[in-house]
Amino acid sequence: MSEELEKTFESLTFFFENRKFADLRQKLLEMEPADIASFMEDNLSETEQIVFFRLLPKELAADVFIEIDSDTQEALIRAFTDKELKAVIEDMFLDDTVDIIEEMPATVVKRIMKNSDPENRKQINSLLEYPDDSAGSLMTPEFVYFYPDYTVEDAFDKIRQTGVNKESIYTCYVINKRKVLIGVVSVRDMLLSEKTDLIENIMDTNVITVETLEDKEQVAMKFSKYDLLAMPVVDKEGCLVGIVTVDDAVDVLQSEATEDIQKMAAILPTEKEYLKQSVFDIWKLRIPWLLLLMVSATFTGLILNHFELTLSRASTLLIACIPMLMDTGGNAGGQASVTVIRSLALGEMDFKDIFKVIWKELRVSILLALSISAVCFLKLNLIDNLIFGENYTIMLCVAISLSMFATIVIAKLVGCMLPLFAKKVHLDPTVVASPFITTIVDALSLLIYCGIVAIIL
Amino acid sequence: MSEELEKTFESLTFFFENRKFADLRQKLLEMEPADIASFMEDNLSETEQIVFFRLLPKELAADVFIEIDSDTQEALIRAFTDKELKAVIEDMFLDDTVDIIEEMPATVVKRIMKNSDPENRKQINSLLEYPDDSAGSLMTPEFVYFYPDYTVEDAFDKIRQTGVNKESIYTCYVINKRKVLIGVVSVRDMLLSEKTDLIENIMDTNVITVETLEDKEQVAMKFSKYDLLAMPVVDKEGCLVGIVTVDDAVDVLQSEATEDIQKMAAILPTEKEYLKQSVFDIWKLRIPWLLLLMVSATFTGLILNHFELTLSRASTLLIACIPMLMDTGGNAGGQASVTVIRSLALGEMDFKDIFKVIWKELRVSILLALSISAVCFLKLNLIDNLIFGENYTIMLCVAISLSMFATIVIAKLVGCMLPLFAKKVHLDPTVVASPFITTIVDALSLLIYCGIVAIIL
Repeated sequence: MSEELEKTFESLTFFFENRKFADLRQKLLEMEPADIASFMEDNLSETEQIVFFRLLPKELAADVFIEIDSDTQEALIRAFTDKELKAVIEDMFLDDTVDIIEEMPATVVKRIMKNSDPENRKQINSLLEYPDDSAGSLMTPEFVYFYPDYTVEDAFDKIRQTGVNKESIYTCYVINKRKVLIGVVSVRDMLLSEKTDLIENIMDTNVITVETLEDKEQVAMKFSKYDLLAMPVVDKEGCLVGIVTVDDAVDVLQSEATEDIQKMAAILPTEKEYLKQSVFDIWKLRIPWLLLLMVSATFTGLILNHFELTLSRASTLLIACIPMLMDTGGNAGGQASVTVIRSLALGEMDFKDIFKVIWKELRVSILLALSISAVCFLKLNLIDNLIFGENYTIMLCVAISLSMFATIVIAKLVGCMLPLFAKKVHLDPTVVASPFITTIVDALSLLIYCGIVAIIL
Repeated sequence: MSEELEKTFESLTFFFENRKFADLRQKLLEMEPADIASFMEDNLSETEQIVFFRLLPKELAADVFIEIDSDTQEALIRAFTDKELKAVIEDMFLDDTVDIIEEMPATVVKRIMKNSDPENRKQINSLLEYPDDSAGSLMTPEFVYFYPDYTVEDAFDKIRQTGVNKESIYTCYVINKRKVLIGVVSVRDMLLSEKTDLIENIMDTNVITVETLEDKEQVAMKFSKYDLLAMPVVDKEGCLVGIVTVDDAVDVLQSEATEDIQKMAAILPTEKEYLKQSVFDIWKLRIPWLLLLMVSATFTGLILNHFELTLSRASTLLIACIPMLMDTGGNAGGQASVTVIRSLALGEMDFKDIFKVIWKELRVSILLALSISAVCFLKLNLIDNLIFGENYTIMLCVAISLSMFATIVIAKLVGCMLPLFAKKVHLDPTVVASPFITTIVDALSLLIYCGIVAIIL
């Protein structure tokens, strides 16, 4: 938080505690809704939040409301009179209302619906029907549309009349009488045209659209690829049903990245902020993978039990190297898998590239394996033997370094292939990230190690 | 890639190979620059790319050029005549020109500068002086500004006259005679006002700004927090020097997430696409951490050598459980560290929250440790003993489960604290992600294990 914002928060607290409400409201008018929401969440108790919210200048109330976390929203709605609730709902865009409804318990939803006007209620209901991860769930039906025979002047008039209630006015959509989307025109183009120009002559007919059921991650990726401010959503017949705006796309990109990172760390994904999750919530997100990976370590245990005699007969020093081999294998495999997973997520790579990827990883892994096993050989002789007085013979060092070489190559190949195969069979590639690959590589590297030791020694 | 796009690519190939250039140009006019760039990169040889680029309709050339990867850009520039180069540069926004220059070798940069007009050259030079990760490096000096005594009509006239060369016209900036930024006005507000209204009466004086040297990740986070389309960049005196647009902020968010993911997987960060990196490039990004982590495994080796006698005297079965303990510890620590790292990156958490975080992780870890060690106890008795015929006594199972409990609690605490301390001492929290924490937790869990075994057995 910047120093300036911290000072603003201090004066808010001062005005609020000393009941200087005129000063408070003046200060609030100068602030961003997102900052006011942070202030309420971090500095006020639940009862104070309700009092504070009622003090908000009317034009800020809805904007602040949509920025608050869902627990506080619920508490506020429960405290609102019907009139207050109605006022807030009327000032919100429909996609924000729908986002809020999705987080609320049934009784609260009922109250929200009761206090929406009939037209909005119908639209909210149809938005609620789209799956959670679809373009439909992200869009708002509040857009500006023209018919192709409008002049630029007609178009500006329409923006002036209806624009105040539309989420985005800078990209406007041109539809025919059957509501089929036929073009798009930006306010920029309109400003640079003559007033009497016809919209059909200045519109762009090559429109990037998404369908209602398209995955919202795909939608967000299109924003990033084509540098858009808004994107039209059409149904199967090509009729325009809504738009997605860039601010929502940015949120999707952020939360998808967060979810991928969580999954890569063997955590079930969540959109809730860590500090706002309960201890039990966090437990539920972390226990499944932790358990599964722990139980699957049974295999490494069995392998070790089976080969321990071989290893300790050759030299007890061989056992001390197992963690180093396994960790290096896990890290090497993790590097490859995470690289492939991210490339898949960014759309830079697809299953058809699998041979290119394998060929590249094979060469990279041989280079890496050569460097690492050479250093490993030196490390055993210089650090372990000379400095710490262990007693690794040349043959032991050769066996360990050879195992290291094979482990790295195999870890890289497994690491790059598994996410691609997961993608191919429509599994989420992210779940086969490092922790999962580590478990597989652990078992493989042990088998290699014991095999090499059995042969060489 | 969508089927439609695939078909378009096929017709492009057909038209190009059969020299049907009129059809080709017609098709290109219907396409997005980003798609044309993908086509060139994936389907054409270097010589073909040059021929193809010369066939592009003039109005598309610069837009396609900025979407192409830097190797192809370099090849194209080398092939361009001075006239061609000049035409492309003139059509690009200055921030894009600067992005390209930053990737080019000195000889190419010289040619670009020689072919820019003197005014642009001066601006390019000043943009090049900002550090790579600063707001200054992200901004463009091409924005629309008004003086406060303009009427709305004057303002629209100015947009009509100069707007075509400005990167964003929807948010305009109001400055005084000393170029100090005093307000911001959106085209939306202007459209909803009277023509004779004065800009100073409709402008918003609470402007969210960034300073030229602010970190570009911070800039991108502000876009996501405040839902902006453009943000003004000011110097230390408050003078407006440029704007950052939302499409650049989206790119920063994407590449910062990618970099964080790379760092968490023990890879040095890069912005280059995986499939375009050479084998040696990839080796350079992966070898440092792999080597460092391998060498640091010396400690686990030493611990094991020191305690192996204790372990194998108690029971050789104890050694078989080491991978399970270490992996579970590594996964548990990774979950905590990655959660904290992402919260820090999203600005949801700061060092001052350290006690909240520790208290939360302590409770979560005890819950997790209880569940995991109970299952571990059962697994040893049911899976290992009953199914696989191993011979874990009750005392062995107790010792292993207790070690598991302690390992998980300690792994979680180390995992949540290290990134916060890294942040505190201005290190990048991301580098202490899972692989690093695994190495520390490995050593700690071995010490715990051997300690517990020594006491109990």
